[in-house]
Amino acid sequence: MNKLHTFILVGLLCVNALLAQNNANNIQLDLEQSAQRKNILIPDIAGYQTLKGDFHIHTVFSDGLVWPSIRIKECWTEGLDVMAITDHIEYRPHKNYMTDGHNHSYELVANDAKKRNIILIRATEITRSMPPGHLNALFISDADSLYKKEVDDVFETVKEQKALMLWNHPGWKAQQPDTCLIYEVHEKLIQEGLVQGMEVMNYTEWYPIVLQWCVDHKLAVFANSDIHGVSAYAYDLQNGHRPMTLLFAKERTQNGVREAIESARTVAWFDQQLAGPEDLLRQLFEASVKLKPAFHADDKYQYMELSNQSDMKFSFINEMTSNGAPERFELQPRKTIVIRVNKDAGSFNVTLDNCHTGMFKNLQLSLM
Amino acid sequence: MNKLHTFILVGLLCVNALLAQNNANNIQLDLEQSAQRKNILIPDIAGYQTLKGDFHIHTVFSDGLVWPSIRIKECWTEGLDVMAITDHIEYRPHKNYMTDGHNHSYELVANDAKKRNIILIRATEITRSMPPGHLNALFISDADSLYKKEVDDVFETVKEQKALMLWNHPGWKAQQPDTCLIYEVHEKLIQEGLVQGMEVMNYTEWYPIVLQWCVDHKLAVFANSDIHGVSAYAYDLQNGHRPMTLLFAKERTQNGVREAIESARTVAWFDQQLAGPEDLLRQLFEASVKLKPAFHADDKYQYMELSNQSDMKFSFINEMTSNGAPERFELQPRKTIVIRVNKDAGSFNVTLDNCHTGMFKNLQLSLM
Amino acid sequence: MNKLHTFILVGLLCVNALLAQNNANNIQLDLEQSAQRKNILIPDIAGYQTLKGDFHIHTVFSDGLVWPSIRIKECWTEGLDVMAITDHIEYRPHKNYMTDGHNHSYELVANDAKKRNIILIRATEITRSMPPGHLNALFISDADSLYKKEVDDVFETVKEQKALMLWNHPGWKAQQPDTCLIYEVHEKLIQEGLVQGMEVMNYTEWYPIVLQWCVDHKLAVFANSDIHGVSAYAYDLQNGHRPMTLLFAKERTQNGVREAIESARTVAWFDQQLAGPEDLLRQLFEASVKLKPAFHADDKYQYMELSNQSDMKFSFINEMTSNGAPERFELQPRKTIVIRVNKDAGSFNVTLDNCHTGMFKNLQLSLM
Amino acid sequence: MNKLHTFILVGLLCVNALLAQNNANNIQLDLEQSAQRKNILIPDIAGYQTLKGDFHIHTVFSDGLVWPSIRIKECWTEGLDVMAITDHIEYRPHKNYMTDGHNHSYELVANDAKKRNIILIRATEITRSMPPGHLNALFISDADSLYKKEVDDVFETVKEQKALMLWNHPGWKAQQPDTCLIYEVHEKLIQEGLVQGMEVMNYTEWYPIVLQWCVDHKLAVFANSDIHGVSAYAYDLQNGHRPMTLLFAKERTQNGVREAIESARTVAWFDQQLAGPEDLLRQLFEASVKLKPAFHADDKYQYMELSNQSDMKFSFINEMTSNGAPERFELQPRKTIVIRVNKDAGSFNVTLDNCHTGMFKNLQLSLM
Repeated sequence: MNKLHTFILVGLLCVNALLAQNNANNIQLDLEQSAQRKNILIPDIAGYQTLKGDFHIHTVFSDGLVWPSIRIKECWTEGLDVMAITDHIEYRPHKNYMTDGHNHSYELVANDAKKRNIILIRATEITRSMPPGHLNALFISDADSLYKKEVDDVFETVKEQKALMLWNHPGWKAQQPDTCLIYEVHEKLIQEGLVQGMEVMNYTEWYPIVLQWCVDHKLAVFANSDIHGVSAYAYDLQNGHRPMTLLFAKERTQNGVREAIESARTVAWFDQQLAGPEDLLRQLFEASVKLKPAFHADDKYQYMELSNQSDMKFSFINEMTSNGAPERFELQPRKTIVIRVNKDAGSFNVTLDNCHTGMFKNLQLSLM
Repeated sequence: MNKLHTFILVGLLCVNALLAQNNANNIQLDLEQSAQRKNILIPDIAGYQTLKGDFHIHTVFSDGLVWPSIRIKECWTEGLDVMAITDHIEYRPHKNYMTDGHNHSYELVANDAKKRNIILIRATEITRSMPPGHLNALFISDADSLYKKEVDDVFETVKEQKALMLWNHPGWKAQQPDTCLIYEVHEKLIQEGLVQGMEVMNYTEWYPIVLQWCVDHKLAVFANSDIHGVSAYAYDLQNGHRPMTLLFAKERTQNGVREAIESARTVAWFDQQLAGPEDLLRQLFEASVKLKPAFHADDKYQYMELSNQSDMKFSFINEMTSNGAPERFELQPRKTIVIRVNKDAGSFNVTLDNCHTGMFKNLQLSLM
Repeated sequence: MNKLHTFILVGLLCVNALLAQNNANNIQLDLEQSAQRKNILIPDIAGYQTLKGDFHIHTVFSDGLVWPSIRIKECWTEGLDVMAITDHIEYRPHKNYMTDGHNHSYELVANDAKKRNIILIRATEITRSMPPGHLNALFISDADSLYKKEVDDVFETVKEQKALMLWNHPGWKAQQPDTCLIYEVHEKLIQEGLVQGMEVMNYTEWYPIVLQWCVDHKLAVFANSDIHGVSAYAYDLQNGHRPMTLLFAKERTQNGVREAIESARTVAWFDQQLAGPEDLLRQLFEASVKLKPAFHADDKYQYMELSNQSDMKFSFINEMTSNGAPERFELQPRKTIVIRVNKDAGSFNVTLDNCHTGMFKNLQLSLM
Repeated sequence: MNKLHTFILVGLLCVNALLAQNNANNIQLDLEQSAQRKNILIPDIAGYQTLKGDFHIHTVFSDGLVWPSIRIKECWTEGLDVMAITDHIEYRPHKNYMTDGHNHSYELVANDAKKRNIILIRATEITRSMPPGHLNALFISDADSLYKKEVDDVFETVKEQKALMLWNHPGWKAQQPDTCLIYEVHEKLIQEGLVQGMEVMNYTEWYPIVLQWCVDHKLAVFANSDIHGVSAYAYDLQNGHRPMTLLFAKERTQNGVREAIESARTVAWFDQQLAGPEDLLRQLFEASVKLKPAFHADDKYQYMELSNQSDMKFSFINEMTSNGAPERFELQPRKTIVIRVNKDAGSFNVTLDNCHTGMFKNLQLSLM
């Protein structure tokens, strides 16, 4: 009714305009969603700001399907702080239609990113058969000079540019159909400090074994979209979110992002699954969820509120089977549940079913 | 719980796989919305199929922001039958990054359209200052040859290619800031049969005066998106729809589309406003909405169901003020309302508030 | 912006009103969802109208939590044609707050149902421990007289009232914790024609074994909500639906409903699972889904549209593993998918994964 | 796919169960939305906790349509802290079906409220023709004793019970069709301290003149639902909210609520309109919205983020017409926008279009 009503009123105004000017040219239906940036609620942890990043994004300049400016708009709207456009160096299926040059996608939007307070990391995707597979070079200064025949020469140039690399989708079936192995070349790149992280989540996949490698090697975990099409067509942005790399940074700057990666202070987040080092997940949970002291008790039970201040979901397995609480329970984003436990319950140990700290390991903690 | 549960089960399977193969490489989170084409419910009218079209669409090959294949996917998913990619001939802000040629956007996706049963009209947008402003040439055979200095030469080539034109957004403020006039050149193009229609709705605008011109000149009305960015970011596709041109065609083919345009058998539909010739709107309404005979009566009233089989909304003004029915009522897509009228009510005249048949004219009809 | 704008304009009008009357008393924010009845798209089958029913509903007059009028409004809005309010005879936990009498919930809303074109079946729930458990008596004339000590006397009265019964939730764990058996009493009631159907789906449960009994005994299958609280709080009405019993009736009347039940012409529908006799499911599918002739072919494949005109979902398992189509695919409500099969594919056999025709049996058919 | 997959796996498990036990009795479809309480994000202000309340709610015990327990569940789920069930004393249309007594609706759920940490105010609605119209008595000890013929005797009893009153919907057309006046009786009740507040918003209405009275008399403003049916059927709970009274309380207790009302520390909130005393609205805005220092500047402009930490919406009118920012802009809940102002812009005065501080008065403040 409201919209209808407005329409009528505007119509009346136009009648007047028309009498005066013989003109009913332009009635704004004004339906376009006006641009607003989502505030993703993920708390900071002690000493660090939590930044949300996506370090694997394609555009028409390699095999993506949108212009780089759409990427800035998507990331801004979805609430990301940091992003890297990573067009393939060696794979450019649109090249018959595009002029040469690997720096275009960055240069076209560097200023747009500044105006929206987005940290845009200069980057590219080194795209080779396995080994070494695909690696994103971040913090580069020139993508063109990474276009070389020998991959060892590419790595040399990455080093010269003082860039760093992450290993993309190590469990991608197209490159590791039956196994999921680290090759010698990766071990070497890790030892040299050139590879500083790996994707444990990519697009719609997740690789538990890669999480274990990252934990073992103290490398940064990444959850990246690797998006080629339109974000809203790939993910349910109303109820869900794209894969994101959470970074715990000393400052919201290029340097801050780099230092967080090099210190392996990251957590992967996608489809409400979290994966990363145990201490970071624990701090993230504790900053997000509060179990308040009992607000009520009766003869048998005490009643407590478990409240989630964040946009992350948490799934609990109750490890104290006979404490009166359910075997499993969930805490949705920005929700509170009432936990009823026996009056004499002393402690309350749980496993966080969606918080992965290793290949077969989940976060365990005590709620009380 | 379901999703969680699946996750756990998949996890268990992976444990087994891992023991055998030392591999937990790839768990599909499988969140991508699988592609399904919407069936937009708009009925046929006597003798004609109702096709849904968008004849004004841009890609990266002029000033649009997506690759042509995204356009095919969008239109297919949103339920369109017919589309025209209409990249500007004279305005190519991305030209430093793109190779020359005005036929690329059509040729890249002509086969993709065939595989999805989309009628793709070969087209381009002639982009001049006013007059004549912007005109879409449809059913062309070669866009490159329309790139000429003199606009009269362009029109000559359109004629040679046996194409036709529609006049875009005649009420666009950038070209008609204070007035909305037909110029001599348009009158001439109409008389010559080169201009066969006009946009009465474009992107988020609508032009009542242009509807009047179309009715007066027996030209096809168009509602087109003129989309440059991503459809889902411009329109609320869950609850709404992009501007669409409804065509009443003898057959679902290129020829059928052309014949419908040349016969001015079209209706513009956007933001649940319909605009077009009175007889077409009346037939469309009558094929969509049924007032069934009274199913119940008491001492004072009779009760009837008014049922909408379509995805269009209808807004009614009751012209029989004392017949017991409300002054205004709405019938949402695929809904039924109960109309209660006085027992002795003979006829029931209404004005369709959202069905525009002229500049200050709305569809009027009798429900009983 | 629209809503805001309206608000301002209304505000201005009020200023004028105030100057004249010293009054700014009442601005309608008018946010209430105006009542519209959903048209659930489920086709008729040859010779019959498809009615949607719920035959198990509670109100405050037994252990439900809403007044009977809310039930009429819910069912009307959700698109049901037939409903039965089935308050427990023997279980009335609110009795300290309510006056005596088992006919109130029916009598309070019988007229309201008439005004909304809802077929309201007079009914009650016989509520005993197992055996015989809970049975709904439908088409009764007086609920009070069913309040008797001996259940056999109750069955006698059911017979005298020419009512019929359905057996509710035979697999309910509270009454059959470890097994799911038909007792002698049920066999007897079936033989006498007093029990004419069983619930194969109830609230959020479904019982495959009960489907088999219904098929074997040629009894009507039912999917009922057994709702006690608010429908919108129990089900996701935006994207889903309450359990419904689909009836294939000769006419949309009390008699039509009864004849359909007695002839076992029903299908249970919940959570996009369908359960019922094979021939009815087959007819329902064939009236809902069309595979159109190939619209396109290339060297290797032919392309066909599979289109769903209904609000039901269908899940397919491809039984022709090497015909070029995917192993599994889904067809969402009111959607179309493109099926690509090998050019030389002759037939296309599928199993309908969500169409249950027996305990371990699913509908099988040939798409081409 | 996920849900489907789960279904199949569960089905397989059941097959095994069946072989062992001849039982496929019970497959949980488990679709019910599991109960989670929404955390409404509205910040505290200096020295006070912000509580969300609804002080006008009906049940089947007067003319409402749901059992009291539904009210507790609704308020808990929607995130309210405080509620009052206010069944009419003098108007009980269901009385033929209900036993006598005005205390039932409170007593039935007092314990349930405790288990959910809801502050349940004992209350009733005094229901008279105008004057004095309808008044809610809050903090009563016995509703039965308020059932008296003479309204003055009722007021006397209210005083004896140390209760307080708010005047409901003073602008309700049924009682003030052409005017909106305070009567002598209200002035008297205010002077005596018996009336401590008025509804400025009720159900879907709002009364600007009543806001002015409250400001002038230093009375608490209220926004209450006056709900009779189901909350989810009256309001769009996904995107909107019921009318709420925001209370700024020293503590989250009955006493804290009462003290806030008696001190007129309340704000009315509905349909994203806020109404209340200027200082409270200012504090609420300042605790919700931050304008951060410019993050970027170019030759002409500086760029700043305006960020909304709350679930309230704010609509701005720019009072500095030539500062480079838009004339009007909105800040949606939990969103951030970029404000671009001229480099030399010194201050930035705005009017908050949806923050009402008097009958024709809106909150004005300076963003910088």
